[in-house]
Amino acid sequence: MDLKSKIRSIPDFPEKGVIFRDITTLLKESEALQQAIEQMQHKLKDVDYDVILGPESRGFLFGMPIAYHQKKGFVPVRKKGKLPAETICKEYALEYGTAAIEIHKDALKKGQKVVIVDDLLATGGTAKAIVEMVEETGAEVVALDFLIELKDLKGREVLKNYVVESVLQY
Amino acid sequence: MDLKSKIRSIPDFPEKGVIFRDITTLLKESEALQQAIEQMQHKLKDVDYDVILGPESRGFLFGMPIAYHQKKGFVPVRKKGKLPAETICKEYALEYGTAAIEIHKDALKKGQKVVIVDDLLATGGTAKAIVEMVEETGAEVVALDFLIELKDLKGREVLKNYVVESVLQY
Repeated sequence: MDLKSKIRSIPDFPEKGVIFRDITTLLKESEALQQAIEQMQHKLKDVDYDVILGPESRGFLFGMPIAYHQKKGFVPVRKKGKLPAETICKEYALEYGTAAIEIHKDALKKGQKVVIVDDLLATGGTAKAIVEMVEETGAEVVALDFLIELKDLKGREVLKNYVVESVLQY
Repeated sequence: MDLKSKIRSIPDFPEKGVIFRDITTLLKESEALQQAIEQMQHKLKDVDYDVILGPESRGFLFGMPIAYHQKKGFVPVRKKGKLPAETICKEYALEYGTAAIEIHKDALKKGQKVVIVDDLLATGGTAKAIVEMVEETGAEVVALDFLIELKDLKGREVLKNYVVESVLQY
């Protein structure tokens, strides 16, 4: 199956000049959903890991089925203020302003091997912030696995010391 | 396994008097995650359905692994403004003010059988709004499946014309 044909490209969303890659058209078709998750899992077949981390909210869509199928734990990365217990927080720069994300302080143990899963690698800003949070806990990032990579935005360069996998490249 | 023992209860979050049921302590343990998803799936074993709908963002956590494992499609319900194509929008009342959620207009087909999956049934306000959106498309809600039900808040009464399942009751 040509998974790219299942992704809808929408020009000028959320702002002029951006082509938005809409995964909802892929997810609503059971066969395309199957293949997307299977191909993301396949990228991890030689990776030894304990737990999957996925950022709110599209990282949840792909991280959880992989965690379930591979019998791993899952740690949600959330926007600031959503997690109820003590957190580690990381601010990072966006094109305009900043964003802040959190994980629970007790979410990871020292030495745990972590895979970060998300739908999209763009500039790598969010992924880099997540990597830094993971490393603050003493856990280790062993791979990052994305459904889509926007190659022109060079997120892979920001993550050059890490194993970065993606299923579909634009 | 006693799944309730894996859920952390945090008093006075997000506001005074509320006991927050924190599922992150369940998700980070692979066996508890397995059992939670399996028990939610088990509740649907006699339900004939085509597609799972899950609301942003905790509905994604439980809806997607079930959709993947049961070879169904998945439709994300999102907060207003996040979906890039034409949407159906539904406003609903919160304790203070209103919230608005959306699905893509082309997300469901007339006659499709839909299961709504979320982490928590409280007052049923969000669930009811989702049901109304689904019915506007001509699709049919055949069941709602929650990990947790807060019985005192009587969400089940708001949804009394529908099949409502939950794994853990408080």
